Amino acid sequence: MNLRIPGPTPLPPSVLEAMSRPIINHRGPEFAAMLREVTARLREVFRTENDVLILTSSGTGGLEAATANLVSPGDKVLAASAGLFGDRLAAIAESFGAKVTKLDFPWGRAVDATALRRRLEVERDFKLVLVVHNETSTGVANDLAAIAEAVRSLGDDRPLLLVDAVSSLGAIELRTDEWGCDAVVTGSQKALMAPPGLALVSLSERAWRAAEKARAPRFYWDFRKAREYAQKGQTPFTPAIAALYGLREALRLMSEEGLDNIIARHRRIGRYTREGIKALGLRLFADEAHASDTVTAVRVPEGMDADGLLAKLREEHGVVLGGGQGPLRGKIFRIGHMGYVSEEDIEGVLEALRKVLKG
Amino acid sequence: MNLRIPGPTPLPPSVLEAMSRPIINHRGPEFAAMLREVTARLREVFRTENDVLILTSSGTGGLEAATANLVSPGDKVLAASAGLFGDRLAAIAESFGAKVTKLDFPWGRAVDATALRRRLEVERDFKLVLVVHNETSTGVANDLAAIAEAVRSLGDDRPLLLVDAVSSLGAIELRTDEWGCDAVVTGSQKALMAPPGLALVSLSERAWRAAEKARAPRFYWDFRKAREYAQKGQTPFTPAIAALYGLREALRLMSEEGLDNIIARHRRIGRYTREGIKALGLRLFADEAHASDTVTAVRVPEGMDADGLLAKLREEHGVVLGGGQGPLRGKIFRIGHMGYVSEEDIEGVLEALRKVLKG
Repeated sequence: MNLRIPGPTPLPPSVLEAMSRPIINHRGPEFAAMLREVTARLREVFRTENDVLILTSSGTGGLEAATANLVSPGDKVLAASAGLFGDRLAAIAESFGAKVTKLDFPWGRAVDATALRRRLEVERDFKLVLVVHNETSTGVANDLAAIAEAVRSLGDDRPLLLVDAVSSLGAIELRTDEWGCDAVVTGSQKALMAPPGLALVSLSERAWRAAEKARAPRFYWDFRKAREYAQKGQTPFTPAIAALYGLREALRLMSEEGLDNIIARHRRIGRYTREGIKALGLRLFADEAHASDTVTAVRVPEGMDADGLLAKLREEHGVVLGGGQGPLRGKIFRIGHMGYVSEEDIEGVLEALRKVLKG
Repeated sequence: MNLRIPGPTPLPPSVLEAMSRPIINHRGPEFAAMLREVTARLREVFRTENDVLILTSSGTGGLEAATANLVSPGDKVLAASAGLFGDRLAAIAESFGAKVTKLDFPWGRAVDATALRRRLEVERDFKLVLVVHNETSTGVANDLAAIAEAVRSLGDDRPLLLVDAVSSLGAIELRTDEWGCDAVVTGSQKALMAPPGLALVSLSERAWRAAEKARAPRFYWDFRKAREYAQKGQTPFTPAIAALYGLREALRLMSEEGLDNIIARHRRIGRYTREGIKALGLRLFADEAHASDTVTAVRVPEGMDADGLLAKLREEHGVVLGGGQGPLRGKIFRIGHMGYVSEEDIEGVLEALRKVLKG
């Protein structure tokens, strides 16, 4: 199977192999060494000196955790959204009692950093800004550098910036410290080439100060406990050990390839995918000026049944793509090209598409 | 290494192997078939006709999820506790704004079902009763049948019963439906012989009615979403797929052995462990009338350094045991004997202990 959904992604053979190692004591020295290695390597991928916490959950769990640690009921939150995952982030904050203002942009287009900045300048009491770096549902990579700059321009009493980097980190440039991202959340199962089951969260000093005071209920998600245990090489609760074996091996592979090379590879493959799609006579869904280098959304040709197309690709060609989500269901399909991916993998996707479209 | 902590537990070779299967689409037909098989097999282990939900988190995450779905801020909750995990369950409910009354019993002894019943009879407005089936921190198995009977005796307007079965389910008799347990939570990494990373939760119809009305904040933990997705063979968020591969294989092995045989094996090995410990001249920590068949807590002999003892066992004999937790740190050590365990494994533990104690 050529699994090219926007996550979970295929795993390199050595990562799959690593997951079969025997289980160890999560309170013992071998585990502590693994946690320290993984955390140090994650800091490089996050480009941060901050704490990076490892939670056993999906990426969404990591986003819920970050929210629960950063907001108190009644806090004003500004959520910039141009897709399903932007909406989800807003919904999480709402479920924790925050007063969420949505700043919506058309799906398929990017979040406008200038509009965000104007809003923040006139309404100065937002505690938190929510943004999705790479909108998996539409194939748009938001200009996080500009968005972070818009927030930072407000000075010392600016809101915190929480970034959903689930489908970007480790594939698309993200400079946590340089850009001043207070909380960055990703999952193990996308660009990081590891199995699903772990959420990874970096927190700035400003975020920690907020976490000390936040009043949203939390126990499993409590970052203070996570930091306390991390200092002794442990997690507060039994972690997904096999997933950590996989993540450690994947991070070693990433370190060998080099983060800049990985980002360049994704840029190359993103372009290759889009050019290939257009050469097939298909239309891209997203604004090409902000096209994502990890997910490409393609419009389903007029009169064609999306589910039938995806089933044919899977059954006749062993190619697994993602469908559209929410209002985009039936209107687009999505090709994931992140993590363990090469031009050849995408060539296989394009070739299968060509055959199915002709057939 | 002979890993005999009270979880995570060692995995059978075929379970380890299963975890190296390639990642699949969590929205595709192959995943749906796996989820249905795992859920059906879990129902047998839970001895329930109820829904069993699969969450990506540790067991504690499952307990937080159950709490968030069953309580609203201000609800009165009665937490029976005789150890660290009983206290933890109470703390989770407190963190979600419940008004928690603790019913404490001495550590090392069991929760007294009669005392619980008396309390519930005089104070009729508790919404929820919390109890740990097998108290991992002390090696005591509470008489859940009697506790559940005490709750059930209150009739139709009785509180809900939430059971932490993390270190019991699949090893110690637990009859979810027959006993009327409204929510039962366990983790994948203990008696179920699967890797850590999944929490499993069964919910009665009464629990579902409460979940529809509960006002605690939740998004990732929202059981309503989990049930909705389960009906189409999916989970709301990307699940720990490799852990599910492992769990499926482990449940197949359990089905081959038969649940009654598994429970009998644990009873036999529990007794074998306790007799072996006493034969070494060591003293059990727990009241033997309620000794757990999955965890044995042993008093550290007067004047002996517990950490040194555990380090020696690990370094010189490859035997990994658990230490005491909280106030029991340094006073006891704990032997896990659940899941993939035989008399020979425990013989190895006893033999190593004998050598270290003599040396």
